Amino acid sequence: MTVTRVDGRAPDELRQVRFSRNWLDHAEGSVLVEFGRTRVLVAASVTVGVPRWRAGTGLGWVTAEYAMLPRATHTRSDRESIKGRVGGRTHEISRLIGRALRAVVDYKALGENTIVLDCDVLQADGGTRTAAITGAYVALADAVEHLRRLGALAGEPLTDSVAAVSVGFNSDGVALLDLAYEEDSAAETDMNIVMTGSGRYIEVQGTAEGTPFSRAELDTLLDLGAAGCAQLTHLQQEALA
Amino acid sequence: MTVTRVDGRAPDELRQVRFSRNWLDHAEGSVLVEFGRTRVLVAASVTVGVPRWRAGTGLGWVTAEYAMLPRATHTRSDRESIKGRVGGRTHEISRLIGRALRAVVDYKALGENTIVLDCDVLQADGGTRTAAITGAYVALADAVEHLRRLGALAGEPLTDSVAAVSVGFNSDGVALLDLAYEEDSAAETDMNIVMTGSGRYIEVQGTAEGTPFSRAELDTLLDLGAAGCAQLTHLQQEALA
Amino acid sequence: MTVTRVDGRAPDELRQVRFSRNWLDHAEGSVLVEFGRTRVLVAASVTVGVPRWRAGTGLGWVTAEYAMLPRATHTRSDRESIKGRVGGRTHEISRLIGRALRAVVDYKALGENTIVLDCDVLQADGGTRTAAITGAYVALADAVEHLRRLGALAGEPLTDSVAAVSVGFNSDGVALLDLAYEEDSAAETDMNIVMTGSGRYIEVQGTAEGTPFSRAELDTLLDLGAAGCAQLTHLQQEALA
Amino acid sequence: MTVTRVDGRAPDELRQVRFSRNWLDHAEGSVLVEFGRTRVLVAASVTVGVPRWRAGTGLGWVTAEYAMLPRATHTRSDRESIKGRVGGRTHEISRLIGRALRAVVDYKALGENTIVLDCDVLQADGGTRTAAITGAYVALADAVEHLRRLGALAGEPLTDSVAAVSVGFNSDGVALLDLAYEEDSAAETDMNIVMTGSGRYIEVQGTAEGTPFSRAELDTLLDLGAAGCAQLTHLQQEALA
Amino acid sequence: MTVTRVDGRAPDELRQVRFSRNWLDHAEGSVLVEFGRTRVLVAASVTVGVPRWRAGTGLGWVTAEYAMLPRATHTRSDRESIKGRVGGRTHEISRLIGRALRAVVDYKALGENTIVLDCDVLQADGGTRTAAITGAYVALADAVEHLRRLGALAGEPLTDSVAAVSVGFNSDGVALLDLAYEEDSAAETDMNIVMTGSGRYIEVQGTAEGTPFSRAELDTLLDLGAAGCAQLTHLQQEALA
Amino acid sequence: MTVTRVDGRAPDELRQVRFSRNWLDHAEGSVLVEFGRTRVLVAASVTVGVPRWRAGTGLGWVTAEYAMLPRATHTRSDRESIKGRVGGRTHEISRLIGRALRAVVDYKALGENTIVLDCDVLQADGGTRTAAITGAYVALADAVEHLRRLGALAGEPLTDSVAAVSVGFNSDGVALLDLAYEEDSAAETDMNIVMTGSGRYIEVQGTAEGTPFSRAELDTLLDLGAAGCAQLTHLQQEALA
Repeated sequence: MTVTRVDGRAPDELRQVRFSRNWLDHAEGSVLVEFGRTRVLVAASVTVGVPRWRAGTGLGWVTAEYAMLPRATHTRSDRESIKGRVGGRTHEISRLIGRALRAVVDYKALGENTIVLDCDVLQADGGTRTAAITGAYVALADAVEHLRRLGALAGEPLTDSVAAVSVGFNSDGVALLDLAYEEDSAAETDMNIVMTGSGRYIEVQGTAEGTPFSRAELDTLLDLGAAGCAQLTHLQQEALA
Repeated sequence: MTVTRVDGRAPDELRQVRFSRNWLDHAEGSVLVEFGRTRVLVAASVTVGVPRWRAGTGLGWVTAEYAMLPRATHTRSDRESIKGRVGGRTHEISRLIGRALRAVVDYKALGENTIVLDCDVLQADGGTRTAAITGAYVALADAVEHLRRLGALAGEPLTDSVAAVSVGFNSDGVALLDLAYEEDSAAETDMNIVMTGSGRYIEVQGTAEGTPFSRAELDTLLDLGAAGCAQLTHLQQEALA
Repeated sequence: MTVTRVDGRAPDELRQVRFSRNWLDHAEGSVLVEFGRTRVLVAASVTVGVPRWRAGTGLGWVTAEYAMLPRATHTRSDRESIKGRVGGRTHEISRLIGRALRAVVDYKALGENTIVLDCDVLQADGGTRTAAITGAYVALADAVEHLRRLGALAGEPLTDSVAAVSVGFNSDGVALLDLAYEEDSAAETDMNIVMTGSGRYIEVQGTAEGTPFSRAELDTLLDLGAAGCAQLTHLQQEALA
Repeated sequence: MTVTRVDGRAPDELRQVRFSRNWLDHAEGSVLVEFGRTRVLVAASVTVGVPRWRAGTGLGWVTAEYAMLPRATHTRSDRESIKGRVGGRTHEISRLIGRALRAVVDYKALGENTIVLDCDVLQADGGTRTAAITGAYVALADAVEHLRRLGALAGEPLTDSVAAVSVGFNSDGVALLDLAYEEDSAAETDMNIVMTGSGRYIEVQGTAEGTPFSRAELDTLLDLGAAGCAQLTHLQQEALA
Repeated sequence: MTVTRVDGRAPDELRQVRFSRNWLDHAEGSVLVEFGRTRVLVAASVTVGVPRWRAGTGLGWVTAEYAMLPRATHTRSDRESIKGRVGGRTHEISRLIGRALRAVVDYKALGENTIVLDCDVLQADGGTRTAAITGAYVALADAVEHLRRLGALAGEPLTDSVAAVSVGFNSDGVALLDLAYEEDSAAETDMNIVMTGSGRYIEVQGTAEGTPFSRAELDTLLDLGAAGCAQLTHLQQEALA
Repeated sequence: MTVTRVDGRAPDELRQVRFSRNWLDHAEGSVLVEFGRTRVLVAASVTVGVPRWRAGTGLGWVTAEYAMLPRATHTRSDRESIKGRVGGRTHEISRLIGRALRAVVDYKALGENTIVLDCDVLQADGGTRTAAITGAYVALADAVEHLRRLGALAGEPLTDSVAAVSVGFNSDGVALLDLAYEEDSAAETDMNIVMTGSGRYIEVQGTAEGTPFSRAELDTLLDLGAAGCAQLTHLQQEALA
């Protein structure tokens, strides 16, 4: 069966991925990452010292915050600052990004330094969390390089790279890689996969939006996601070269 | 290798699971569910009508809220009501429970009725979200029965049952089922699996807490979780019989 | 005149009162207290040290927090954590419980330790504040015993016991003890009385819900409340024996 | 024994009480009430209609809000608007004032009109809640008069008048009327009494700050409070004449 | 053309301005300032020490907070404490008042002392921010005098005085001084001018409410405002004499 | 005297100004506006209908919201969404932008449509509010064009164009146009001027950061600002051509 995706891609094809490094002048690392029309600005901010609960341990800290501009989406959303509270989805994705990056950080080598990864979605067209994670690794690598130049590191803090991609089944049962918004809305199953450059899993989050899925379907998605992450790893390496 | 778990269980053994139905007098469905020392009180509240954004569609709605009493845990936590905001973890689990239950609900058959599942953790010893989901299905079934007795249903709103369990690897690389708090804290990998009674996946959430995991390890956890969910499904059927 | 109360009690009769001590595994003191269908879970949490404003004085501190689960009541209430603020009634009762218990605490003997009494209403059928106070004394006594076993006390911190009960007039002018929800809603006058085991008053709060009351009516309620508190004191002693 | 009070008063003597009616130009009723150095500005705002939950019943509504200016007190307090939440004490007193005034309101005669009583403490020297209640009655009477002139009433909405006073024992066991701040801080027992002009009780709130009190002591305070409220009733009548 | 202002004033005439100094007993400086029916209570609170970010610099700090009582206005407004957030207008005016006063403060001479100026509008009839600034200078001068008597100053902290007034064009193109509420609502252009006693500008804020204004119109308003500020400076001197 | 500005500009020279129109795919109008290193992303969102308080009047509405990304600045700032409240500065600038744009809008011609202008500062180097206003006009013009193409307008809603610029004196008394962050921090006087394309004033906000300023100095700044706004108007016309 020939699948026609909304933008003409093959089912196992990524959207055009672009990393514009050093998009900001002040941040220690920054990248404007694009997965097709999804655009996320990631800023990595380095500060000496760690949160109080970690002080004196000799270990560093990496955390992330995710947010969307009000008109990143097709119709405008109210600002969370004005609503006075951060929504569940925002919280959940912020926590996911932080966990994903921390999986490849050697805190001892980082020393008592903190890196905050701010991932602000300027435009959303599906896959904002996977673009954010994939871009955040690039900004993190630049921030680490900044610390290295300052002589502030006790070793190599990055033990591996991190990339993430979404996969899912459309209503015809075809497995798709890197879903755009329209595809994501219509997907029966939606899965986000976060992997290291060396091909191990950091996070697997699969949700049946429609009919619950079988073990065979799960295996198909895991394979497709692994292939997508491998390609993103390659693109990250090129961008950082 | 013989594994000694903290409470003497075999690696693939559930904790003692208990469902005390109708624990509350006012709620349309309620259960005190226990997974070992983890105790969650689930109340299912039925109201006629649906949220405004859904009104007039003829479809029902099911949602969930999760919370912990301040002294559910080993040391006391501050109340979220007093902090004035719901934390990210609370939000995330509330959303997970709601999604899990909605996967087996036929909204048309439910008609324009809303069921809210309040899952309050009275005591926490690991696996509070999986106990909550597993118990919530029982409370939901009772609430649906209540609607049936009232003649308020347009068919059978439950298309299947739902159960959930946690699995993970300990630091010796042994796969464990239904982790208690102490095991969960020490686990290298932590996965929550939500499945239907018929053995399909609703949600798979695996996270590398330590070293990222391989595909083979992922497969082992998926198998173990499926076996655990099948046992829980059986216990739910007994409780509801 | 023969009064028929909703549950067949005599006007001056308490509901069935039950104290299930050590209902929780982690808390230093805990009790599930029941006044008929009203069920309050009280957890006493001990921490070394006192709030900053009291540090270095050698004196301890006791405080309380009261809350209701959303489906404790006949119809579901929204969570205060989600509303983002604690309501006036919750605040008021939390303050009352703390004041009541502090009236029998010798801070010097307690030493610089803090005991927080969390009173969570699992099911409400009138008299939740009086059940909470009466149960909180039992949990407090257990927490103090815990400190004693640790050798952390500088003497006996409890100078007396505390019990509380509600009294009121129904619309026929009959004085009732320990009002259930339905009686409370219909009462002309509503009074909560908190007394020591030795029969002195800690707090008297009487409110005319309907017609303001005379001094003679006030005296009748004070007598009835004193008799009820004496019975509760006796039940506490049995529970703690 | 001769008692010397801080300001030379006899134990059973009120502070100088002053009512400056119509202190504001816009409000339908207003009074600057002074109990010695305690000054509370009460504004009664009338609006046609009632809150949604009461609409269509033909009944009116009366409610109150209490607050303190930041420098009403000896040292400056932070604003509740800036802290982003109303404190427990503020909530509690607002509710008390509203309850007290509603006890003498005939909602049917008031018709579907709402009167909000804003009680803002400009300067605090003890007894702010009793001054607020006593002044609020005067502002309420003026607001009712305003409605009467408009022909908006279905009868006489005020069934009686309301006054309130504090009483307590000092550390020498002497019962004092209308405690100033310094006396209040040092009192063993503190009681607020709200009564109608005809001498019935609306609210009695007694708290043991130090040693719990006996029934005889309670009776002494109730007598003293009744005498104080009678004097305040007389002063209100003069002010409104 | 003869202009008839709502209260019979000439276009370039101030309303009756009154300063009632020491209106409060506890505050180190206080004034009830009236511009016609606009009444603002200003309290100056002195504390030893400065905010953390300024500690150890040897410099003092002056800040201001502005708020309105709910019934200061023609119709009642909700309290910001209850809404749980301070509105934009409140924030903006608080910042303006603080900036205006700080322009004449020599922080070195003030030493590490903080003065907070609380400006609470008891009644509003236009020009509340200009009345607040003009009154705040008087309260500040009294608070500084209080510090001087304590010997806590390192010199003269006030380098000049501050006064403020509003000016604007009505719909007939006539320039008006010190606009009352009704005039302000109808003004084409609205300008607030803050000046020192020596005739220099601290703040100029002009806004076209209707048609944007020309440079010539701007010049007219600046002249009128300067004349008004000079008169207010004179009245401040008299009040402080 | 020859002034060397930090970036080599002449005192009366603007920074390089760039408008990248249609930077976003979903918004009805959008522009990435740059004043040197200051970059503001403006999105204009059109919705049919107006806020409730304006419904049925036949008039449209235009409003604006301003915010900064956390790492727009030299050091990272906490997110307002996480702090749970919008700061005073943010509020103030949002209100200013809305007022500025509304000055050139004919609500009748706009019809009952609402345009929200979201101005998000991606990078800040001084002059973010003037860049936001100047860019917002361009996005507004595109959004109006979008409505025109839909045939949703009742005439020409834009009566003029709007531009804004900052001016100020440096510590040597030299008047500077369009201050960069470093210049702004060191300025004695800081003024923001908002003007129409036809050379009339919409808003003038001048503040003495150091010594208060004389009338002659004020006139110098007004002249310089008018010249700057004229240049910006020209650049807007080119961008929109």
